[in-house]
Amino acid sequence: MKTLDAPLRVGILGATGAVGQKFVELLDRHPWFTITALAASSRSAGKPYAEAVNWISSSPIPDAVARMEVLEASPGLPCDLVFSGLDAAVAGDLERAFAEAGYAVISNAKNYRMHDQVPLLIPEINPDHTALIDHQPWRSRGGFIVTNPNCATVGLVGALRPIEDAFGIEAIQVTTMQAISGAGYPGVASLDILGNVIPYIGGEEEKLAVEPLKLLGTCVGDHIAPASIRISAQCNRVPVLDGHLECVSLKLRKKASAGEVVAALRGFETPASVQGLPSAPDAFLHVFDEVNYPQSRRHAHLGRGMTISVGRVRPCEVLDVKFVVLSHNTIRGAAGGAVLNAELLVRQGYLQPAGVRVEAAA
Amino acid sequence: MKTLDAPLRVGILGATGAVGQKFVELLDRHPWFTITALAASSRSAGKPYAEAVNWISSSPIPDAVARMEVLEASPGLPCDLVFSGLDAAVAGDLERAFAEAGYAVISNAKNYRMHDQVPLLIPEINPDHTALIDHQPWRSRGGFIVTNPNCATVGLVGALRPIEDAFGIEAIQVTTMQAISGAGYPGVASLDILGNVIPYIGGEEEKLAVEPLKLLGTCVGDHIAPASIRISAQCNRVPVLDGHLECVSLKLRKKASAGEVVAALRGFETPASVQGLPSAPDAFLHVFDEVNYPQSRRHAHLGRGMTISVGRVRPCEVLDVKFVVLSHNTIRGAAGGAVLNAELLVRQGYLQPAGVRVEAAA
Amino acid sequence: MKTLDAPLRVGILGATGAVGQKFVELLDRHPWFTITALAASSRSAGKPYAEAVNWISSSPIPDAVARMEVLEASPGLPCDLVFSGLDAAVAGDLERAFAEAGYAVISNAKNYRMHDQVPLLIPEINPDHTALIDHQPWRSRGGFIVTNPNCATVGLVGALRPIEDAFGIEAIQVTTMQAISGAGYPGVASLDILGNVIPYIGGEEEKLAVEPLKLLGTCVGDHIAPASIRISAQCNRVPVLDGHLECVSLKLRKKASAGEVVAALRGFETPASVQGLPSAPDAFLHVFDEVNYPQSRRHAHLGRGMTISVGRVRPCEVLDVKFVVLSHNTIRGAAGGAVLNAELLVRQGYLQPAGVRVEAAA
Amino acid sequence: MKTLDAPLRVGILGATGAVGQKFVELLDRHPWFTITALAASSRSAGKPYAEAVNWISSSPIPDAVARMEVLEASPGLPCDLVFSGLDAAVAGDLERAFAEAGYAVISNAKNYRMHDQVPLLIPEINPDHTALIDHQPWRSRGGFIVTNPNCATVGLVGALRPIEDAFGIEAIQVTTMQAISGAGYPGVASLDILGNVIPYIGGEEEKLAVEPLKLLGTCVGDHIAPASIRISAQCNRVPVLDGHLECVSLKLRKKASAGEVVAALRGFETPASVQGLPSAPDAFLHVFDEVNYPQSRRHAHLGRGMTISVGRVRPCEVLDVKFVVLSHNTIRGAAGGAVLNAELLVRQGYLQPAGVRVEAAA
Repeated sequence: MKTLDAPLRVGILGATGAVGQKFVELLDRHPWFTITALAASSRSAGKPYAEAVNWISSSPIPDAVARMEVLEASPGLPCDLVFSGLDAAVAGDLERAFAEAGYAVISNAKNYRMHDQVPLLIPEINPDHTALIDHQPWRSRGGFIVTNPNCATVGLVGALRPIEDAFGIEAIQVTTMQAISGAGYPGVASLDILGNVIPYIGGEEEKLAVEPLKLLGTCVGDHIAPASIRISAQCNRVPVLDGHLECVSLKLRKKASAGEVVAALRGFETPASVQGLPSAPDAFLHVFDEVNYPQSRRHAHLGRGMTISVGRVRPCEVLDVKFVVLSHNTIRGAAGGAVLNAELLVRQGYLQPAGVRVEAAA
Repeated sequence: MKTLDAPLRVGILGATGAVGQKFVELLDRHPWFTITALAASSRSAGKPYAEAVNWISSSPIPDAVARMEVLEASPGLPCDLVFSGLDAAVAGDLERAFAEAGYAVISNAKNYRMHDQVPLLIPEINPDHTALIDHQPWRSRGGFIVTNPNCATVGLVGALRPIEDAFGIEAIQVTTMQAISGAGYPGVASLDILGNVIPYIGGEEEKLAVEPLKLLGTCVGDHIAPASIRISAQCNRVPVLDGHLECVSLKLRKKASAGEVVAALRGFETPASVQGLPSAPDAFLHVFDEVNYPQSRRHAHLGRGMTISVGRVRPCEVLDVKFVVLSHNTIRGAAGGAVLNAELLVRQGYLQPAGVRVEAAA
Repeated sequence: MKTLDAPLRVGILGATGAVGQKFVELLDRHPWFTITALAASSRSAGKPYAEAVNWISSSPIPDAVARMEVLEASPGLPCDLVFSGLDAAVAGDLERAFAEAGYAVISNAKNYRMHDQVPLLIPEINPDHTALIDHQPWRSRGGFIVTNPNCATVGLVGALRPIEDAFGIEAIQVTTMQAISGAGYPGVASLDILGNVIPYIGGEEEKLAVEPLKLLGTCVGDHIAPASIRISAQCNRVPVLDGHLECVSLKLRKKASAGEVVAALRGFETPASVQGLPSAPDAFLHVFDEVNYPQSRRHAHLGRGMTISVGRVRPCEVLDVKFVVLSHNTIRGAAGGAVLNAELLVRQGYLQPAGVRVEAAA
Repeated sequence: MKTLDAPLRVGILGATGAVGQKFVELLDRHPWFTITALAASSRSAGKPYAEAVNWISSSPIPDAVARMEVLEASPGLPCDLVFSGLDAAVAGDLERAFAEAGYAVISNAKNYRMHDQVPLLIPEINPDHTALIDHQPWRSRGGFIVTNPNCATVGLVGALRPIEDAFGIEAIQVTTMQAISGAGYPGVASLDILGNVIPYIGGEEEKLAVEPLKLLGTCVGDHIAPASIRISAQCNRVPVLDGHLECVSLKLRKKASAGEVVAALRGFETPASVQGLPSAPDAFLHVFDEVNYPQSRRHAHLGRGMTISVGRVRPCEVLDVKFVVLSHNTIRGAAGGAVLNAELLVRQGYLQPAGVRVEAAA
């Protein structure tokens, strides 16, 4: 494992958007990363960040960042790596351009998640998938792309990993109740969601049907052999600020009681390569005993938004076992997950300051 | 079929509670029923209704009712039948006492729903189950009990009936998102539900696992042979005023495409004995084509709260077909359903004014 | 007074917007008006209405309208008058163009509200202000413009009228709590307003400071001599669907007790010219005795959204009297108010079908 | 000034209620206070705290406290002082009993707030009012009572203090929009407040009319000569979790521009006796320049809930100046304010461990 002699200089693509703002928040005072570039569309370029952004968080804009000039999102940014909070509409071309220009691209966008040589990464789940990086076409020029999953995928897969390892999973039924912050800003109109449930989120059920298979798959040379699980998802938008709550039922390959499933969840150990990373929570998974926990508003922020909560593990009358899982969609499910990805890449030696030596850690 | 020469005199048990209030609202200006008795606990007895009640509806208390004196809930009330909005804690003893005293009891409480000789009734679904009435122990004294299902059961079974008839159902996965009004008043504390989802409702999953089996069962002599379907329910409370939205997946006995399921739903015909009843909606089921419908706030009131909405019928990757169903929990799922039950009983000849002749209808 | 031999053919400008949709809803089955033209931007023009619109109401699109082709909003529409739900950005030019082309323009936009010769009209408050019409520059070509006030002005002025008449008003302090539907669609982002209060609405305090003066002013020849009242407004957006609630304190010219103010409010008589108009509510004002009424969600719909509610009339320790007033912002405060304006204009003889005789009413 | 050699042992009266729970949260790991007694009604007494309480916070119950046995709330508790989160119904008798038994009582209840010899205390506002303590009837036995104001009073008076000092205040108009957590638990029923505004909070307007006068008054011997200001309050409940937002207009004794008022607010200096107290925020007041700030959800937590926010300072057309003020109702406005009161009393030497010497601080 590696460590850093000096902080890495990072740029944020889509810095004025909802995910971009979360990157700014989470990278403020980060021990390893220093924001040196904020990039957005040409409409914002040239303005101080505080002026270009419609800041939606309740914490104020960090002072240093507030005064930085927003740059146009194109290669040439003064930084060693970029975090991408770009919209899917532009992320495809721009992220490739940055990778081709030698940048490490740590992306929250969906465009490259299912690309054969791009890791879809949750450090606690599949840290070895970063081996794909060396097979990427952009690698020869020094750049690469790593992605984190969709915000509704993360919590689900967090709970699935120990169960898949212990018993094998054959099929999954999942119904989500997703927070409005998952739709970005301005996102969902208040007239549409106040006192309402919308039983549809465009493209979400499709992502939930495939991303878990790659995350739980096996790295074989230059690609991932996907896990073999049937997944049926029903996605709903609910009037909740942060936190995607999901009701899950599983068909297991090897039968197990609810107690055994709880034991598997509680026995999950964070891989050594992730332990102690600045953004890693004390507990990756927290299993509640309370019959009415976890709850979106009360528990999404557990572990500074990086802990995934599980509750109500019990037998399923149709499949085998059912439970509830909750994760914070803009932290663990977006910007926080991406930052943790970058931290893992530092420790694995994939990220290092230009011209700065990287030493092996103890 | 029968009709009435004079309106039936009705009493409301638990008249000051949330369901009781809804009975008051729905029975105001009802063509067949006239409220002649409002009964509640001894705490309220003796007061004018307007003073005893904490009226929660947005429509005002009907004038005639506002001035009526609240009576104690015990047999002797001046009426031909009673609607019961009693709490389960007292409904068991009180409803039996009324039935023994010769009253017809049309109950929304859960206590007698699974009693062998008590019909659990949705007129459009199982109107023939009222034949159980003649086997009730209280029948010899002139009284009987009829119940309507739990508010989350109604919508589900509404959608299941045509599918069961056409293809047979083997297993059901259902995840509910239930409105706060389902918990009565004061019910859910605002501190618990504002901007939150609570993934638990006490006793609800158990009701959803058994009530549909009785509703879809077959009347054989003095009891119902239940349908044979495995049901797994996950129930959630969401910050919505009215309307229980449910995500449903079904395993069918005879395979069917989503289109065939839609056709079965659209082809469902309200039984002749229910058509034209005062509270029966024009359409029992409404199937939406819009990809993001039905929505709780926008569609729960369809058909004055008596129509059940279905949408997003599509194949399920794990079972066979999945869809969304919505119904109004305090109208179709409680007081409105009970009133429709009473109307069916009038038409079937089970309810008639004391001393008033009932004629066969055309 | 006049009546109609045949329904008037009406067009809706901005038909796909939030106010335009409300016009469609309110004009469906209107006894005097028939929608014959739906106009919107060139982006929507040419499509069937059901396809061009993102319909936000819970009631379905009226069938006849759903199939109508959306036309471009420019003079030449096949109708006798137009209701305008246009955005202020385009309403200035377009409404003038329609008036110049001979159309009666019944507008909800703000652009001409303070124009010297344009009536700012609430039929129950200042029906005589329509006399300004004959002084409008477009009158010679047959057209004219009539406007209704801002949605937050209407409720306030509704309560002020009887008090101004009885005691005179010297100064007004008003703090509003305004519903999200007042901002149109998509309007307020849910991320901004869920569980939040925003103490600012652009331009709203300025409108509240001047519109009441014109509404309560006196028609002198070709303009309105404004009332002389100092008004201080503080406007807030709250997470409520419909209904603007306002806390008002008044300094009176002639001292009056709270009881006298209530008597003045309850004694208010709708002008004869407004009584019986199709959209006029039974009661223009409703004064509650309940200490905690009116409430936004529970009472905004009173009188099908056309009744203004007042409550908590009591002495003010700083000025003289204070109270709460509530009105429905998209009905009384927008589309419903405009339709009532048009109905008054029919009765006053300003509106008549081309080529159709208009008879004096009894 | 004094400091402590050992932590003070504190008891919490009403420990299972909403305010009591907040005391538990805020006192966890407090540098000066250690919870040694949790007291509640006889219904809870004898149970472990985790079992007796319906814990509503999103942070978990501190471990040490979770296992403590709940005691009956009567003198004899093993502690040096008590924080009282008791209901007003019982606080009068119980708090007096504790004071008579020699306990310092730091109370959030309303019962003794207007008692002549009981300080109504906001440390930054009127730290000298603690001089009343020595005149209390219970003082001879070692006990005393100190109170903090109503949750809606605190924010208002926080903004008033610098303005009163600089210009003098003659009259105040205030309209509040108060969070649901101000009503305790279960408090406001969700059916009453979801998507609604309730323009009434029992007893609140009366408190807002008198508490500021005592807080801004002058300590003269054994009582407070109240400030002479006319106050008119209108109080509303809104669907917000935490944070009371208030629209304020002031009539000043000495005219001042909005800019001068902002300067007075920004120039306010926390008294030296409060600086550095563990619960004192870096900034007592924060004045926003943004036109739409402060907002309830976004800014109530400023300064860990102890900073009071002001915004939109501008001229008032009726009085002289108007603005918006926000404070966190359960932290600054309740438990947090009480803890800060206790910290001030430590520094002033009123609170000391039994048998522990208290030294003068530098």
